[in-house]
Amino acid sequence: MSEKTTGLEGIIAGKTAICAVTTTHELRYRGYAIDDLIAHCSFEAVAFLLIHGELPTQAELAAFYDRIKSYQTLPEPLRLVLEQIPASTHPMEVLRTGCSMLGTIEPESSAHNAKMIAERLLVALPSLLLYWYHYSRNAVRINTQTGQQHIAVHFLQLLHGKVSPFAQHALNTSLILYAEHEFNVSTFTARVVASTLSDFYSAITAAIGALRGPLHGGANEAAMALIHSFSTPEEAIIGVKKMLAQKQLIMGFGHRVYTESDPRSAIMKAQVLQLLPHQNDKDKQLFASAEAIETLMWQEKRLFPNVDFYSALAYHYCDIPTSLFTPLFVMARITGWSAHVIEQRANNRIMRPAAEYIGPAARKVNVKYN
Amino acid sequence: MSEKTTGLEGIIAGKTAICAVTTTHELRYRGYAIDDLIAHCSFEAVAFLLIHGELPTQAELAAFYDRIKSYQTLPEPLRLVLEQIPASTHPMEVLRTGCSMLGTIEPESSAHNAKMIAERLLVALPSLLLYWYHYSRNAVRINTQTGQQHIAVHFLQLLHGKVSPFAQHALNTSLILYAEHEFNVSTFTARVVASTLSDFYSAITAAIGALRGPLHGGANEAAMALIHSFSTPEEAIIGVKKMLAQKQLIMGFGHRVYTESDPRSAIMKAQVLQLLPHQNDKDKQLFASAEAIETLMWQEKRLFPNVDFYSALAYHYCDIPTSLFTPLFVMARITGWSAHVIEQRANNRIMRPAAEYIGPAARKVNVKYN
Repeated sequence: MSEKTTGLEGIIAGKTAICAVTTTHELRYRGYAIDDLIAHCSFEAVAFLLIHGELPTQAELAAFYDRIKSYQTLPEPLRLVLEQIPASTHPMEVLRTGCSMLGTIEPESSAHNAKMIAERLLVALPSLLLYWYHYSRNAVRINTQTGQQHIAVHFLQLLHGKVSPFAQHALNTSLILYAEHEFNVSTFTARVVASTLSDFYSAITAAIGALRGPLHGGANEAAMALIHSFSTPEEAIIGVKKMLAQKQLIMGFGHRVYTESDPRSAIMKAQVLQLLPHQNDKDKQLFASAEAIETLMWQEKRLFPNVDFYSALAYHYCDIPTSLFTPLFVMARITGWSAHVIEQRANNRIMRPAAEYIGPAARKVNVKYN
Repeated sequence: MSEKTTGLEGIIAGKTAICAVTTTHELRYRGYAIDDLIAHCSFEAVAFLLIHGELPTQAELAAFYDRIKSYQTLPEPLRLVLEQIPASTHPMEVLRTGCSMLGTIEPESSAHNAKMIAERLLVALPSLLLYWYHYSRNAVRINTQTGQQHIAVHFLQLLHGKVSPFAQHALNTSLILYAEHEFNVSTFTARVVASTLSDFYSAITAAIGALRGPLHGGANEAAMALIHSFSTPEEAIIGVKKMLAQKQLIMGFGHRVYTESDPRSAIMKAQVLQLLPHQNDKDKQLFASAEAIETLMWQEKRLFPNVDFYSALAYHYCDIPTSLFTPLFVMARITGWSAHVIEQRANNRIMRPAAEYIGPAARKVNVKYN
């Protein structure tokens, strides 16, 4: 095996009609460019496109909004489970456990099929996360029925009890950008699990676990920690130079698919600029530090910020705690994962690669182990 | 992409020192042939080999047995969670949810590292499964502390309250055979999740979800259902011929890696023959049906039974309910999964393949979706 095949780089693992990155680094969902979708669509319309295959009619979208409102309440056994999860737990583990538990209460069946579960999870994941968030911190059992039709508003209202229009817009944009990205690791994980013909929740629970890692979705939390660790752009330049000299990974930069820029990064940076005037002086400094890091990383390493870098700052400017950044990625990517599980099932072959053996030669057991 | 690459067949996804299938279809764990391991080792000695890299000294094995006894009790929040899972839930979903939940209570850290979690799960998974099993059926809160050092005995005692030596021997053999098999789908899933540097529980929870599928671990339950559906060998021949004519998949036959026989199958068939004299007449007929299916599948399709086919019958002869067959696979494979997660981390590169786009060409959004 050449080194190049490690990490499956460049290996075509399957076909997809859901998403493509063009040779000019344009990102499209089912043929629609992301900037076009952001200009015209709510996140929910994009979710519908991904899960159902086409953009909705206005009547279909209205019906979808009604379903979103009807999916916000959590069953009692799930709430009792969430109440057992410690406050110190990483929120990604709460989503992983909550998703798995919901599967035991509302299992997949012909009467409760993949598309219905995809829509249910789209709404239930923010509900269950924030139910746990408030209960574990303040022993308050919140009512998760907001009656809101937009996931961004549902989330912000459950978190803060109120919603700023700037935050709503930034979050809606970020959810669209995070919704789908072909065979990224968590989506690939979901497809591999689905290829055994396992149930829908098993595939999604697995994907949540994959997204948690700092080399994948966890990067937005790591990027925020990096930006936060410097008080001024000058400090940031000195600090990142030192990290580079020590060959440390700088999270939020570079991408397996993109080689020159991530088209989502500029869009999130524009959102950050919209939010910037509303921030205090200390938080305004964070943007100066972030830009200094961006410039330095290009000068030193020819690396560009990926979607995670300015998403992190945008979320911070929306007063979202850093530990909820990767969960927001889940709330978006649940749409792409769902589309891929459905697609994998439609033309399935079990995903079973081979391995190169580099272990001990044949040997004998010489003693008895009772 | 040629059709051949679908399902990653023949694609080398990585290197491993844990397990190899030789060109003569011999299966070895870290260089030791499975029949040698079965002749000399308890399952726990094999678990130690897989998790720690070498067979234990007698002192190390004794210490490991002590740890096994100390890992049998479940924390109260986990028991409360298990009490919320309906009796109708598939036991694989109980393991998936229980594993994820345990991760929130005993998270991975430098003080509670991968090898410790691997050993803990080896013991806690049977405990939590059978705690739920008895509670959901009979509202009985069993004491999971059996004080037994062998996983097979721990499991059988929690299930039946007593242990037959024949069942113990068959189960010990089956656990060794199911412990590891290089890049099978669930192990591959665990490695893909681990490649994002996510936590240990995320990788194992994902693997449980993958093993659940009927094209993977779920095959032993499907094989039992098949054998059970016929009262006589004559009925079995007619029935399977009809299924083949309808191009239905016959579970428990064939294998991605083996082309002529699965070395584990003859070993499990020998276990079935040991158990056979102790069965009633109706159950004895099941073996006759199984052999008739085996002969027919070879004559008609040149397909051989894999490990799942006679494992299923052996488990049935041990009075184990069919819904617990795939969970037994988990209790064995947790050792292989753990070894692979540890190996993946030791020389990691994120597992991110590419995809071939076959979807719509570029198109524009023509309306506004608010």
